[in-house]
Amino acid sequence: NEAPVSTIATIGQHEGQRVTLRGWLYNLRSSGKLLFPTFRDGSGTIQGIVPKAAVPEIVFETLKGLTLESSVVVTGKVRADSRAPSGYELDVEDVTVTQRVDDANPFPIQLKEAGVEFLMEHRHLWVRTPRQSAILRVRATIMRAAAEYFDTNGYTRTDPPILTPNACEGTSELFEMDYFDDEKAYLTQSGQLYIEATALALGKVYSFGPTFRAEKSKTRRHLTEFWMIEPEVAYMDLEGLMEMAEGFLRHIVTKVLETHRGADLKLIGKDEAKLEAIIAEGAFPKLTYDEAHAMLKDAYAAGKIEKPHEYGDDFGSPDETYISSQYDKPVMVHRYPAAVKAFYMQPDPKDPAKALCVDVLAPEGYGEIIGGSQRVDSYDLLKKRIEAHGLPLAAFQWYLDLRKYGSVPHSGFGMGIERCVAWLCGLEHVRETIPFARTLNRIYP
Amino acid sequence: NEAPVSTIATIGQHEGQRVTLRGWLYNLRSSGKLLFPTFRDGSGTIQGIVPKAAVPEIVFETLKGLTLESSVVVTGKVRADSRAPSGYELDVEDVTVTQRVDDANPFPIQLKEAGVEFLMEHRHLWVRTPRQSAILRVRATIMRAAAEYFDTNGYTRTDPPILTPNACEGTSELFEMDYFDDEKAYLTQSGQLYIEATALALGKVYSFGPTFRAEKSKTRRHLTEFWMIEPEVAYMDLEGLMEMAEGFLRHIVTKVLETHRGADLKLIGKDEAKLEAIIAEGAFPKLTYDEAHAMLKDAYAAGKIEKPHEYGDDFGSPDETYISSQYDKPVMVHRYPAAVKAFYMQPDPKDPAKALCVDVLAPEGYGEIIGGSQRVDSYDLLKKRIEAHGLPLAAFQWYLDLRKYGSVPHSGFGMGIERCVAWLCGLEHVRETIPFARTLNRIYP
Ligand SMILES: [Mg+2]
Ligand SMILES: [Mg+2]
Repeated sequence: NEAPVSTIATIGQHEGQRVTLRGWLYNLRSSGKLLFPTFRDGSGTIQGIVPKAAVPEIVFETLKGLTLESSVVVTGKVRADSRAPSGYELDVEDVTVTQRVDDANPFPIQLKEAGVEFLMEHRHLWVRTPRQSAILRVRATIMRAAAEYFDTNGYTRTDPPILTPNACEGTSELFEMDYFDDEKAYLTQSGQLYIEATALALGKVYSFGPTFRAEKSKTRRHLTEFWMIEPEVAYMDLEGLMEMAEGFLRHIVTKVLETHRGADLKLIGKDEAKLEAIIAEGAFPKLTYDEAHAMLKDAYAAGKIEKPHEYGDDFGSPDETYISSQYDKPVMVHRYPAAVKAFYMQPDPKDPAKALCVDVLAPEGYGEIIGGSQRVDSYDLLKKRIEAHGLPLAAFQWYLDLRKYGSVPHSGFGMGIERCVAWLCGLEHVRETIPFARTLNRIYP
Repeated sequence: NEAPVSTIATIGQHEGQRVTLRGWLYNLRSSGKLLFPTFRDGSGTIQGIVPKAAVPEIVFETLKGLTLESSVVVTGKVRADSRAPSGYELDVEDVTVTQRVDDANPFPIQLKEAGVEFLMEHRHLWVRTPRQSAILRVRATIMRAAAEYFDTNGYTRTDPPILTPNACEGTSELFEMDYFDDEKAYLTQSGQLYIEATALALGKVYSFGPTFRAEKSKTRRHLTEFWMIEPEVAYMDLEGLMEMAEGFLRHIVTKVLETHRGADLKLIGKDEAKLEAIIAEGAFPKLTYDEAHAMLKDAYAAGKIEKPHEYGDDFGSPDETYISSQYDKPVMVHRYPAAVKAFYMQPDPKDPAKALCVDVLAPEGYGEIIGGSQRVDSYDLLKKRIEAHGLPLAAFQWYLDLRKYGSVPHSGFGMGIERCVAWLCGLEHVRETIPFARTLNRIYP
């Protein structure tokens, strides 16, 4: 009799019944006349039990010498087992090998440790290992939850162009290419300027796509290609933006916990209590730049940080780490000196040397995960700023138009998905946060 | 007393009450001592009534000469009116102008017809007009529904790289750029090869991102930058793929009707009955290539198409239009000659000259909206195909690895979002289907 096809993730629905799994041999242990193959199918892993005495000889012999990552269709009976990581085991009854990995040419990523360069060179295979698969599932949940927050709160998704005629914040670190007829095009670094236009059309919008930075740095935080989600809202001020950013992050963390608690998060080794703390009652802490500076001054005086923070400068990575380590929720630092921030940020009417901006610093030293601001809404000021920054006025004419025809106060932010994945999964390096990382030294596979 | 802030879309919740709207002056008519301003706020438009006798003089005078697209905050009482397109009108009580558009420099897109080049040059403002805003809202619904179908059916979103070291189907029509250290990178034309790798890791996956084609054609169907959604499933065959494609399209059309019936679709001028027909009971029609060829042969004999279809050739645009015009649902044409299809398509075991592939042709002459196939799963055959197509073997080594280590039957398809938007909105040209279209002649704004 036919056994229904099941995934490993949903196998609990078939307890006590026969099912067919379609997947791969992930691991194989044997103990005399008992085999313990572990199967994976993309949704999870499950251990099978194959007693020589209980199965047809061909089944035992097929599995006995089977090479790892061979593709197999397995039929067996589902048995609850509280000791099993997934809660179930499979009493194997039948197996068909779809493709047998050659003995002379085994799966290159074995269960032992391999070097990072080797793993990245084999990323197309490395993604199969349980930890990497789990990270990619959490990434997918983060992306879905991020879009869902906006979709269910009245935002319209509007996609800005990837190929742009000019730089958002100057032309350094831009990837340049030939367009047709001797024109140049540049890969976008942010959709912000474009979604300011769609926000004035549609009110509440967001964009969600890849962005690029031709940065020659080899740090654990930088990719040349990364995904950004950016909301932009007409008639929203900085206070509204901070409230929205908190709701957005709470929604993402809630969904990640709901979907991966006790499973993928455990496998990855993330301390779930740290995520629970983020969504616990109590607003995210808010500090002005001045308050954060004062905190760092005290910290330096008390010998808790190595270098003093110079008033007026942006915060360095150790500064951000110290500030965020004072809280178990993300910290919102707002109203930085305008001089260290982008040209399009609205000055604080109470202190025009400050920008109406906010950086959200993630806990555990993960640094800035969100950067946002209210945007300059005066034509004259924006024009002055563009000129003062040495940006080509002609290229920004359309952007200036937005201040000519029905300008309104408006605000938005950007969140890089990979930073967020690194933070919520507790990863050392962003290269594991995306299926195929692009870095200074790597565009293969 | 403060009136609550409302959007125009949700104003019905405040019938009989005072509300504040934040938006723009879209249109202004006057009739003696009565003004009829129409306001827009991104969620919709509503007409206001301003009788000179009933409002403070300053309110009447402010609105009387107000330039179109000036930003305004308006307070008034919501009144149901069955003659109004939105079902409501606003008895204006107060108005504040946030920014007044200069009389000497009016909003460049007036309510009368403007040339396409002018509109595209002012796309950042054109998106504000009701028809363009409506199209962008439908686009957002399509994108959301497309992702939702996969998210709620056990798929994991995995993002393929945009910067790739080699071409998916040969190196023509690729945008090339310098990466670091004299390397070349190319903008992706499809994420398929990469998500074949993640499908073998995660089982059911999809990608959703921009893709690029450096095509020197100026047709109404081509953009150089467009968005694709691509599912890929391990252990799925062509029959399973066709079933999935139908479920996917039904979900999208259902959501578009649910969200935009009688409103945006009406404004755009789409015949909603054509969309209802798609999701009505009854499976999508399926034709083999051979059956479709026979249909075209009869059509030519009957004088219904101008040119005969040559057996073995791909279908031309008039052929596809004729085939699809026979049905009111999308048509699935499967098993094309392998010679006219891509190298990675699995041959039909019953007739190896045919590929296990499917093109889904949209009704109303919108052509191919989905192209998919079962993929070659044999290492030897795939290697032979890569060589026969003159593709560089070294660049495809990682792709070949997928057939070496646990190869399985697997299938996937790609759908271009812009084609789908054009079809579901009934648009002549794809340039209106995306916020900032990129074509042979345009990368501004
Ligand atoms: Mg910062
Ligand atoms: Mg075709």
